[in-house]
Amino acid sequence: MNPLRCDRTEAWAALKGHYEAHGRDLDLREAFARDPGRFASLSVEAPELFADLSKNLVDLATLRFLQDVARECDLERRRDALLAGEVANLTEGRAVLHTALRAPKGVASPFNADVHAVLDAMLAYAERVRADDGITDIVNIGIGGSDLGPQMVVPALDAFCQRGKRLHFVSNVDGHDITPVLRGLDPKKTLVIVASKTFTTQETMANAAVARAWFLAGGQGVNESDIARHFAATTTNVKAAAEFGITTTFGFWDWVGGRYSLWSAIGLPIAIAIGEANFRALLAGAHALDRHFAEAPLAQHLPVLLGLLDVWYRNFHGFTSRSVAPYHQGLRRLPAYLQQLEMESNGKCVDVDGHALPYGTSPVVWGEPGTNGQHAYFQMLHQGTDVIPVEFILVKTAAHPHADLQTKLLANGLAQSAALMLGKDTDSARAEKAPTASATLDRDVLARHRSFPGNRPSTTFVLDALTPRSLGALIALYEHRVFTSGALWGINSFDQWGVELGKALCNDLLPRLASGDTAGLDGSTAGLLKRLTA
Amino acid sequence: MNPLRCDRTEAWAALKGHYEAHGRDLDLREAFARDPGRFASLSVEAPELFADLSKNLVDLATLRFLQDVARECDLERRRDALLAGEVANLTEGRAVLHTALRAPKGVASPFNADVHAVLDAMLAYAERVRADDGITDIVNIGIGGSDLGPQMVVPALDAFCQRGKRLHFVSNVDGHDITPVLRGLDPKKTLVIVASKTFTTQETMANAAVARAWFLAGGQGVNESDIARHFAATTTNVKAAAEFGITTTFGFWDWVGGRYSLWSAIGLPIAIAIGEANFRALLAGAHALDRHFAEAPLAQHLPVLLGLLDVWYRNFHGFTSRSVAPYHQGLRRLPAYLQQLEMESNGKCVDVDGHALPYGTSPVVWGEPGTNGQHAYFQMLHQGTDVIPVEFILVKTAAHPHADLQTKLLANGLAQSAALMLGKDTDSARAEKAPTASATLDRDVLARHRSFPGNRPSTTFVLDALTPRSLGALIALYEHRVFTSGALWGINSFDQWGVELGKALCNDLLPRLASGDTAGLDGSTAGLLKRLTA
Repeated sequence: MNPLRCDRTEAWAALKGHYEAHGRDLDLREAFARDPGRFASLSVEAPELFADLSKNLVDLATLRFLQDVARECDLERRRDALLAGEVANLTEGRAVLHTALRAPKGVASPFNADVHAVLDAMLAYAERVRADDGITDIVNIGIGGSDLGPQMVVPALDAFCQRGKRLHFVSNVDGHDITPVLRGLDPKKTLVIVASKTFTTQETMANAAVARAWFLAGGQGVNESDIARHFAATTTNVKAAAEFGITTTFGFWDWVGGRYSLWSAIGLPIAIAIGEANFRALLAGAHALDRHFAEAPLAQHLPVLLGLLDVWYRNFHGFTSRSVAPYHQGLRRLPAYLQQLEMESNGKCVDVDGHALPYGTSPVVWGEPGTNGQHAYFQMLHQGTDVIPVEFILVKTAAHPHADLQTKLLANGLAQSAALMLGKDTDSARAEKAPTASATLDRDVLARHRSFPGNRPSTTFVLDALTPRSLGALIALYEHRVFTSGALWGINSFDQWGVELGKALCNDLLPRLASGDTAGLDGSTAGLLKRLTA
Repeated sequence: MNPLRCDRTEAWAALKGHYEAHGRDLDLREAFARDPGRFASLSVEAPELFADLSKNLVDLATLRFLQDVARECDLERRRDALLAGEVANLTEGRAVLHTALRAPKGVASPFNADVHAVLDAMLAYAERVRADDGITDIVNIGIGGSDLGPQMVVPALDAFCQRGKRLHFVSNVDGHDITPVLRGLDPKKTLVIVASKTFTTQETMANAAVARAWFLAGGQGVNESDIARHFAATTTNVKAAAEFGITTTFGFWDWVGGRYSLWSAIGLPIAIAIGEANFRALLAGAHALDRHFAEAPLAQHLPVLLGLLDVWYRNFHGFTSRSVAPYHQGLRRLPAYLQQLEMESNGKCVDVDGHALPYGTSPVVWGEPGTNGQHAYFQMLHQGTDVIPVEFILVKTAAHPHADLQTKLLANGLAQSAALMLGKDTDSARAEKAPTASATLDRDVLARHRSFPGNRPSTTFVLDALTPRSLGALIALYEHRVFTSGALWGINSFDQWGVELGKALCNDLLPRLASGDTAGLDGSTAGLLKRLTA
């Protein structure tokens, strides 16, 4: 029986007592009034990032109890084992070494020579593509981890992207994804990247076949031998790629999980977009955060503190989701990226020993860019029945010249986190004018509609600027946070057995969609199949 | 005291008893085994839509109890009052008549002549823009309800969009939103639509000012008088628009809520993209669903049944979120659209009388296109600790020629809903091969990692094709579903007081970001402000 599970530590019982006595009823407004040093003592500097944790439902005692749990779970030793390349993905018997992908050349780090050999080759190829004026459009075909990283990073680093080349991302097996992408492109000026570790991923190979046919139909003088120039693959299956006609391939290793792979050859579309120096800066930012992960004391350890907060909110306060609100339009796909990173890693209901867990694990992670969310679902964050912790990401310096917009953006971000915490009582609401209110509505009733409970928690990250380096650090921060909560929960954060069953059932259903055969299916699937094949 | 609240009905107590006795432990696999007619009795035909409710944690008795609650809440009379234009938005003293925007010309419907006068003028203008080869790009500047509808519908109806004109959407006050959009455009070939009911929305006016300056800097021969040709507004503030230089405006009414406004002049970018006939088909599809809403008996009333399920899951099973999985890439922004529709409407914690509600209201609504989700967060849906109902949207016929992809897409959708329900027990898992499993792992432990609890509920919608008509029906279905759950919960689904406080605090903070003044601020906001202004 795994002793390294949060609920089996002595500190867990103490934490329960603390929650009952002080945690459950903590009022943020009172906490700030009581302690003028709260902001200073509950904010953390990490490489490239500043984090204000002071608007969370904790005090220093809470964090000490949580750190005790972490120590009893042997978190630091397990982190060291992870970084050293011991087998952390126990069910698949694999090391988990995305940190090795960010280690500088020549340092003592597992597989350092292998990593840099592929990295150098991949970046050299990216630079050749960048210098090739004959290529105007790059289409990355991949799904899940072979898609979400590049698709998230490229718009985030728009200010660093080469002009004159457009990046496109195709992931969905739905033909409505690739069709509008290829519509406007010239095959002779397009590079297609097929991203699939095994070169067998159903969705990716189906789209790659469409792209190949489109390319070969691309007009006079295009033939099969041109595939070598217009297609590349990020894969370990060089043989299958060669049969497709692809001669340029970049590989990776079984210790690179899909959701941790943007740092590997899977990052090729990023490298083409931002170039070698910027890609190396992205890696360097992540590496700086890796050093923090390896070395910071727990009390000032940002990913650990965030992971501990996640456990606190999930298992004591019972919050079931967390909303991510980037106040930067370039980070619009960060929530989708984090959905995979967190929910695929920690959306598990058994511990490493296969025992059913008696507590909740990964919450739902969701969100849209901040000011857009304000005009949509923030109503619920402020006045809904559920408390949902919000994560604000503010970027001090903009990469555009519109200072007025940047000021408004930052004021909005600050105002929302303040509003969630401060709330508004009915007396204040009653004292205000409400121009759009019904004239016949009772004043007290209106005040209750216009009041806000407040005391709703949030974390605010501040980046000085959104650069390859700071983005690298931000992503690595989330990776290590997920490691922390997963470690305390006692789960394997690095497998994904939950994708298997759907794949098997899909293979069973595929021929049935042609034949209409419903034998042995459940009543619903049979009924739907009939309708879809009628 | 409002008697029309679900928890004050007699049927609610009966429903509680039913939940304890039969509901909580319902097993879908057993239910299908017991009742071969389950699919037929728990599926519903509505205009343009088929819905399979049979994989939900209900039986016919559950639905009867829920319908009893609805009747005691006087749902049908309140629906009739809504449709007749009585004041349904009580706190603001307004009617709520998005259904009137879809009523055909000449029928007995509130404001019918006004609606069609604006609609005809708006569509005539849209056709002129479509016929104008001098305009290649249309930029819609709006936020919230003035953005999410057009931004969702235009890619959904890609197959119906005019080629040669590109639609762009700018919403965020962050300058990183508008900057890449304008980068590639020629002011002389661009039409900018400013969408703001009041023409004062902070974000929209800031972006409109950037677009105006960009336009005027657009080269030789461009001057202020050209604004009239290159800008239009969907607004009721004709005076302010005229001061901006805009002479083409289309208005709407105070009974059109932002999140219900795509059917009004706010739909102008949609009309330009798909043309008059298709826009009228979109309205007709919604109107067909409105007739269903007005006339269907409760037992076959799709929006009511969905709203009742939402109440059942939220208040009996305690589920706090719902995932929407469109198996159509064109519907990729539907979850974001529904976040506003549902969470802004029903994310409230007081009833219409201002009394604090003793139960949960709007869940978190979230999701990504289905097959992409499978490679990201579906792990958690299958094997996480929380049950999250999923909504599958399948479209039988594709608008592209890749039959192989369409078959794979549908097989995936069917397989996922089946997998969620069927699960896999440890004996089955133990009997299978798992090629990637660690050789040293105990066989029983591995089987527990590879088993699935199953019995996870889902709804599947089937559309024959994604057309203006079926999309109109689908959106209207969600609108009426939200009305239903909101009515049972006893809340005002049509106001949004929760956006007020943030706006007020933002106005307070704006000058402080220039001055650095932190007087009177809470410790966190003061600390963050200092950091952002340092």
